[in-house]
Amino acid sequence: MEVLFLFIKRVLCKELAAHNGQVVELAGWVQLVRQVGRQLAFWVVRDRSGWAQVVVSGALALTALPHESVVAIKGKVVTSKSQQGYELQADAVTILAEADELPFELHLAEIKAGSEQILNHRVLSLRHEHNQAIFHIKAVVAQAFRAHLVAAGFLEVQTPKIVATGTEGGAELFPVQYFEQTAYLAQSPQFYKQMLVSAGFERVFEVGPVFRAELHNTSRHINEFTSLDLELGFIDDAGTLMDLETELLQSIFAAVNEKCSSELELLGATVPQIKRIPRLALAEAQTILTSEYGHPSPVGNLDPAGEKLLCQYAERTWATPLVFVTDYPTTVRPFYALSKREAPELTHSFDLLFRG
Amino acid sequence: MEVLFLFIKRVLCKELAAHNGQVVELAGWVQLVRQVGRQLAFWVVRDRSGWAQVVVSGALALTALPHESVVAIKGKVVTSKSQQGYELQADAVTILAEADELPFELHLAEIKAGSEQILNHRVLSLRHEHNQAIFHIKAVVAQAFRAHLVAAGFLEVQTPKIVATGTEGGAELFPVQYFEQTAYLAQSPQFYKQMLVSAGFERVFEVGPVFRAELHNTSRHINEFTSLDLELGFIDDAGTLMDLETELLQSIFAAVNEKCSSELELLGATVPQIKRIPRLALAEAQTILTSEYGHPSPVGNLDPAGEKLLCQYAERTWATPLVFVTDYPTTVRPFYALSKREAPELTHSFDLLFRG
Repeated sequence: MEVLFLFIKRVLCKELAAHNGQVVELAGWVQLVRQVGRQLAFWVVRDRSGWAQVVVSGALALTALPHESVVAIKGKVVTSKSQQGYELQADAVTILAEADELPFELHLAEIKAGSEQILNHRVLSLRHEHNQAIFHIKAVVAQAFRAHLVAAGFLEVQTPKIVATGTEGGAELFPVQYFEQTAYLAQSPQFYKQMLVSAGFERVFEVGPVFRAELHNTSRHINEFTSLDLELGFIDDAGTLMDLETELLQSIFAAVNEKCSSELELLGATVPQIKRIPRLALAEAQTILTSEYGHPSPVGNLDPAGEKLLCQYAERTWATPLVFVTDYPTTVRPFYALSKREAPELTHSFDLLFRG
Repeated sequence: MEVLFLFIKRVLCKELAAHNGQVVELAGWVQLVRQVGRQLAFWVVRDRSGWAQVVVSGALALTALPHESVVAIKGKVVTSKSQQGYELQADAVTILAEADELPFELHLAEIKAGSEQILNHRVLSLRHEHNQAIFHIKAVVAQAFRAHLVAAGFLEVQTPKIVATGTEGGAELFPVQYFEQTAYLAQSPQFYKQMLVSAGFERVFEVGPVFRAELHNTSRHINEFTSLDLELGFIDDAGTLMDLETELLQSIFAAVNEKCSSELELLGATVPQIKRIPRLALAEAQTILTSEYGHPSPVGNLDPAGEKLLCQYAERTWATPLVFVTDYPTTVRPFYALSKREAPELTHSFDLLFRG
């Protein structure tokens, strides 16, 4: 196959408007072919920036092109009545890779296939605009997290993932054969963060993988995920941390709103406006659950159903889907959680609940 | 112990000048105590921003304070003849944590201890300004890498670290017991990056851990490190990648020069100015090594000594410590390296050598 184009001259779909009247090159995936006759076809071509309509006429309209084939197209940008106001009149087409028969179509609003089928063709299903949107939002969340913390004097670190022992206790560790020894995958950067604070860095954060050998047939557990972790020294009390977490979420939500508006619209998702996040001591939260919902809680803790109800209560009472629960007892928290001086059976630890 | 201070009023060492004449609070580690008499002492106090001189007089000067104790100090900022032009006259001191006897001193230009002693007390040795500097530079490198790529339209991703098989071939994998199965730690995000490119993201990057079960008694191998990885689609040839890598290094080096000048000075380190990085085909590089240094190379590859000599040659010939070596044969590269159409026994892959 001869490649006609040098991608160095390539223009992205979203840049067409800026090249009105010019001859440019597009390259990407053919999402949809609408054949209007032997002499005319409309293609929807997608690249990392979005999609564009391409008008293919004359002999070129006979090009047999399965959906999701990869093409490079040279043509003139003209105004059009399409949604975007511009389209490309194709002069030449190079098929860089012709697609096989697809297991599902990608130009529909949703992928019509079961989850096994979708996961077996993950590379393909990731091309769907919903999945693209999720990945873009995820990247913006991590970047906003970092930007806020760097501005607040935090140092970004990477801590070891192969460790000698667990952090959180319990048996939820993945063993690693480390030469002649058994090591484990880190459940959390917890100890490393704490040690780095006392190593003089004071404020550290990490965006990295953590590993939990938990059953994963619930919506609350996963074996491997990216954790956004921070730790800071020289604070007054847990209130300082809740203030910081509130500001951090404000920054992250603002960034997602600003940079991912089209992704949010596509997914029908909204991010909450946060002013102050209410703070409830665990005992108080348990009382509310009993009196408002007749829902008793386990001793010294909340259950998943109780957490859901509490967020509904916060939404109704304070018009926010978020609530801090504080003052968990030492019995349900890891050993490193600081006891309260005035009530040693309680800790300074807290959880943030969001929509349950 | 009663804590006198609310850290919310805390000022950092580097901010003293902005508070001349005011009463402020410092908190940090006492790096050095110079007792001048019963009534006077000078302390060097260090926090995440740097260090400050504190003048302790009267009864306070009797405070017995081992080096590296953690303190909070209230006092007045005054001008001084010290290196910084300002110092703090202590009015009140709270010892937040008194240090034990130290295994080594941290106020000297270098830690005077063996590497085993240093690693056994890693939290402490990390307080030394050399180690602090390294961590700061490392963070700036990762941030500059991301910033450059985000600006160039790359998406940040996190790929799985527990995988079913290796990427690079060979037995250099760490086995993980994944419930009833054996899995492995990822040697590289290689395949995931490539799949994400063809999943429509086109340009992706990752900053994350990779794991290699290699012997680590050489300076060229390590079992776990943070890799800066990228992948892009729609390129003309390997030259596009070398251009990108050159620009990326220019960005990273510029950021390190701008944001880490004091760290570089402390470590006596310099980063190179890069204009163009010379490109040598492997065969050419081997010829130079033979003719200039009488150093033969292994078939189809370079050895570590040859790589060092080649960088010396680049330094001498083109005044740069960096050189790209291209056109490695298929026999020494992973199977996914693209063959050259005009010479199928060679690949489009390349290595960048830096000071050997």
